[in-house]
Amino acid sequence: MDLLELGKRILASQPFSQYMQCELKRLDEGFAELSLDILEDYKQHHGFVHGGVVSFLADSCLTFAGGSVLGNSVTSEYKINYVRPSIGDVLVAQASVLSAGKSLAVCECKIYAVNKGERKLVAVAQGTIKKVTE
Amino acid sequence: MDLLELGKRILASQPFSQYMQCELKRLDEGFAELSLDILEDYKQHHGFVHGGVVSFLADSCLTFAGGSVLGNSVTSEYKINYVRPSIGDVLVAQASVLSAGKSLAVCECKIYAVNKGERKLVAVAQGTIKKVTE
Amino acid sequence: MDLLELGKRILASQPFSQYMQCELKRLDEGFAELSLDILEDYKQHHGFVHGGVVSFLADSCLTFAGGSVLGNSVTSEYKINYVRPSIGDVLVAQASVLSAGKSLAVCECKIYAVNKGERKLVAVAQGTIKKVTE
Amino acid sequence: MDLLELGKRILASQPFSQYMQCELKRLDEGFAELSLDILEDYKQHHGFVHGGVVSFLADSCLTFAGGSVLGNSVTSEYKINYVRPSIGDVLVAQASVLSAGKSLAVCECKIYAVNKGERKLVAVAQGTIKKVTE
Repeated sequence: MDLLELGKRILASQPFSQYMQCELKRLDEGFAELSLDILEDYKQHHGFVHGGVVSFLADSCLTFAGGSVLGNSVTSEYKINYVRPSIGDVLVAQASVLSAGKSLAVCECKIYAVNKGERKLVAVAQGTIKKVTE
Repeated sequence: MDLLELGKRILASQPFSQYMQCELKRLDEGFAELSLDILEDYKQHHGFVHGGVVSFLADSCLTFAGGSVLGNSVTSEYKINYVRPSIGDVLVAQASVLSAGKSLAVCECKIYAVNKGERKLVAVAQGTIKKVTE
Repeated sequence: MDLLELGKRILASQPFSQYMQCELKRLDEGFAELSLDILEDYKQHHGFVHGGVVSFLADSCLTFAGGSVLGNSVTSEYKINYVRPSIGDVLVAQASVLSAGKSLAVCECKIYAVNKGERKLVAVAQGTIKKVTE
Repeated sequence: MDLLELGKRILASQPFSQYMQCELKRLDEGFAELSLDILEDYKQHHGFVHGGVVSFLADSCLTFAGGSVLGNSVTSEYKINYVRPSIGDVLVAQASVLSAGKSLAVCECKIYAVNKGERKLVAVAQGTIKKVTE
């Protein structure tokens, strides 16, 4: 089974990822791309996507990137900066592994909102992914 | 209208907070407490609450705390460390303002999982809330 | 040898901590306090203490706190928010362990500037300390 | 006066940057590069460069990058992940602006240790730079 197929099975086994209708678009060794359609349910009161949705996508994407080199993993910590309101049809997150040891990987993630085909950076994240041992 | 009542109206006007069935329990000047019941939908494949749910709650709670001193606000950035898997019936987040200027407030947040009445720290967050100006 | 004495020996063995004339004031299991006198050399061009000095103190204090429960340790990552310009005679950092496992500890740190006896919060930090294994 | 020349004057006016013998190598709109020679004084007890030195360089480089688009600026907050012990002759930091508004810029920074001509990533940072207004 290739990495993308394996990743899709893991995503399908996560109730919250299903609840958020999140899709895994790419998974290579050291790289992951996730997306989700922007539903009305995902917005806050200013009409933009709620930060919690953007954070969820960043957190997940960091973990898929880290997991692509570490195996079964969880997010240990991350930091996110919102740089622009998320407006549009789709959110896309792309994460890369910057450095990996045996048990920890440091990853970065950029999150874009795609509005009528135009992609704009809406958030950047950086975090540590930890291999689950046992 | 008191601060808690105002906060509840804002929360009720956020589609994603409604989607997540998030509740505002306390809102004082410089302090906020949010909670949400842990549903099956909120879990990941290890059976714990998905980090994205914990992040959403932290992000929201930081913003309510910051907003209690700044007025209409958004999260500018935050960082979260997950310290223990979230297992139980309810997640509770409590955030405090550490410092506030005219346009920015720095806040900290602790997130607990309550399992059969026992409360355990599951994550800690720290971030910057920015007043919305216009 | 008690913990504080051990900590002082470690600090004395770090050339950069000596270069910065940093002092360990307290070290208990799960808690550390460091201080340094504010010298002209530590300032930036606005006349305040340079952020790099505040960061150094935060980083060190987080590691001493984490090391008090983990043993020989290094900082894995941390985040710092500067909340006020550092003006005064002395910088004091106090760090506590929020959660510790076998190899990682999550700690928080508050940094104060003391000006003519008045102590003001100037920065807050949160980070992960990692046990050195080998 | 070009941007690099202006940046060098600012660096020269910062006592702590002089104390650390830090050099500004490049400064373009949205990009900064700083370096410092690794002295014995900058190490910790494991023989590597002290994290506080790496943090200082990251913090400074983020601020120069942000300041290149905002003007007179300070670091509001940043986060750093250490990914490898810093061993070698020189530390080099490169920071880029990811997004900038009127008063805030979000920047990322990579820090490398150069050992006998070989450059290795030792830390990554992400933070917010704030324009000084008055």
